[in-house]
Amino acid sequence: MQRRRLVILGSTGSVGRQTLDVVRAFPDAFEVVGLCAGNNLELLKQQVDEFKPSYINAAADHDNYNGAAPLPAEEIVSLPEVDMVMGATVGCAGMGPALATINAGKTLALANKEVIVMAGEVLTRRAKETGATILPVDSEPSALWQCIQGEDTPPARFIITASGGAFRGRTWESLHDVTPEEALKHPTWIMGDKITIDSASLMNKAFEVIETRWLFDIPYEQIDVVIHRQSIIHSMVEFADGSVKAQLGPPDMRHPIQYALFYPDRQENDDLPRFNPVETGSLTFETMDPSLYPSFQLALDYAKKGGTWPAVLAGADETAVSLFLDGQIRFTDIPDVVASTLAAHTPVMEHSVEDAVQAAAWATEHTLEKHAAGATI
Amino acid sequence: MQRRRLVILGSTGSVGRQTLDVVRAFPDAFEVVGLCAGNNLELLKQQVDEFKPSYINAAADHDNYNGAAPLPAEEIVSLPEVDMVMGATVGCAGMGPALATINAGKTLALANKEVIVMAGEVLTRRAKETGATILPVDSEPSALWQCIQGEDTPPARFIITASGGAFRGRTWESLHDVTPEEALKHPTWIMGDKITIDSASLMNKAFEVIETRWLFDIPYEQIDVVIHRQSIIHSMVEFADGSVKAQLGPPDMRHPIQYALFYPDRQENDDLPRFNPVETGSLTFETMDPSLYPSFQLALDYAKKGGTWPAVLAGADETAVSLFLDGQIRFTDIPDVVASTLAAHTPVMEHSVEDAVQAAAWATEHTLEKHAAGATI
Repeated sequence: MQRRRLVILGSTGSVGRQTLDVVRAFPDAFEVVGLCAGNNLELLKQQVDEFKPSYINAAADHDNYNGAAPLPAEEIVSLPEVDMVMGATVGCAGMGPALATINAGKTLALANKEVIVMAGEVLTRRAKETGATILPVDSEPSALWQCIQGEDTPPARFIITASGGAFRGRTWESLHDVTPEEALKHPTWIMGDKITIDSASLMNKAFEVIETRWLFDIPYEQIDVVIHRQSIIHSMVEFADGSVKAQLGPPDMRHPIQYALFYPDRQENDDLPRFNPVETGSLTFETMDPSLYPSFQLALDYAKKGGTWPAVLAGADETAVSLFLDGQIRFTDIPDVVASTLAAHTPVMEHSVEDAVQAAAWATEHTLEKHAAGATI
Repeated sequence: MQRRRLVILGSTGSVGRQTLDVVRAFPDAFEVVGLCAGNNLELLKQQVDEFKPSYINAAADHDNYNGAAPLPAEEIVSLPEVDMVMGATVGCAGMGPALATINAGKTLALANKEVIVMAGEVLTRRAKETGATILPVDSEPSALWQCIQGEDTPPARFIITASGGAFRGRTWESLHDVTPEEALKHPTWIMGDKITIDSASLMNKAFEVIETRWLFDIPYEQIDVVIHRQSIIHSMVEFADGSVKAQLGPPDMRHPIQYALFYPDRQENDDLPRFNPVETGSLTFETMDPSLYPSFQLALDYAKKGGTWPAVLAGADETAVSLFLDGQIRFTDIPDVVASTLAAHTPVMEHSVEDAVQAAAWATEHTLEKHAAGATI
């Protein structure tokens, strides 16, 4: 196999670091062309020393470092020598380089699900026009994707599993006083802060439903969510004849990352944990009760409206989560803050990606202003 | 889709009847060219009235009936107007028509696993020569087959699930006095008598391992068995990267039968039960302890030797099971009777299908003679 020439957006974040773990395990399979990060310049420099990219980009001020020249992320992903881009940025800020990747007709392995939530309809249409491919990296959409391989008949139903997050089994009312530290303790997955908070509120699960709707072009009515506490079955697909396929494995993000990086091949990697059915114990399923998770229902109600609504949802949620992590609002305020911003939005229904970006930016601004004007913990 | 022109071997047995249930649900998809049965002429005639085959065959004496002309099964399956043969005969007697199907280069959907146990190596080699295709119908190999669809990299490990049969949780010693009625109560599947007894001893699970080895051309070392009491996960495949796919569904043979009949398509069938994860309850896995199941270990030990050994295994087991069902030997005698016949066998290592058929016939004869000469319950 020819080396895949890779750019990693968000290389110092959780998915970015794990992507480099996989790249490290296969020195002959990948060439890292570019690394883009946020403010963690120290780690970025270590990554440059190890993976020798030609280009770097960071939110923080940075110079040419050890042969890696600074270049805007949008330009790095569009370089002719790039085959694949790992979109591992967190939040709405990932849109620019993700869109540039799609416009350049490259393969985009997308962990940064906010981008698809913001503008899934437009981005997937654009990808069709440019010949770009968007591959899921998130474990649940990756599981669905693995399950439909080789199936010619359209799937009848996607069943997305949900661990239930840090507060599963508790009522929404009992979460009034939970701290960011408590909300950041995910029961099964090790992930970045934003997604872990979104998992606790099940906002993240709604985002996965939205991501699934667009990446697989399947109507919302054919997507179900079921609580599966063990995070072993990453999702399931029911086919027309009633047969169901599930994709399983220990909860480790390197599995879906590696699948996307090598797709359609599979490679042995001794670093990755293996599934042992007997040690795994029981696998259980419970009904997901939307009344326990107001964020979930809110998100889907607005996502289904289309237009710039989901972009506002993504922007408002991202802002509400930072306010919570900063101790500015309560965990249980998150859906109320998001709902209040959504209520103030005037949507653009026939929208472009630019409209979505502007709507998300407006949502952030509006949420912060409203909070500054009086909302207190 | 063009109508598939079908012959059913063993049409009055459990899998044969369920095959006709599927055919009945899709009146435009199949044409029944021939029906072959054993002694249940009454049911065969009903089937002829309903499905109007051109040819019939039965072990019992029969004439031309309602437009269906008697013809040897080997000739029916070889007719130019036949596309697919469902091999749903029970036991070693299925070999003749199965081999004729393969020799004629047709598609053989094979539920009759004894045929593959007897001569899997030779039959799969022969199928390659004639261009015949052998499709699994048994739920576990069907699950493995569904899981490898679209996967280009060879599977790393097949994990076959086992309900544990009628006596799961009991020690072998405690089964000394069990009756045929008790052994025929399968906890999850409704199947014919022979396979239900083989399930109780886990001989059937060994047969599935052997079937898997040949149908998928995978070494025995890469096939594991795990106890899964619920019979919901029908089997699993682990790939090189550690990702695992499982095929799931309510235990109903019409699912794998329909999958084989329509392969590679899938068709909606409202008659079939659907998987409901929440109603399903917990899915559990336990180590299969071979010491609890002497038949399992015995079967695999001899199957791995190759040559005519597995044919003797199949013949001796079939005879021992009928002796048990006739009240002639104890349930716990089955592996001893089989082992004693195996011990008396002089194998042919470079063997033909004919050698395998003769070895199985010898095994039946030897087992019966030895029993007549003195073994008592």
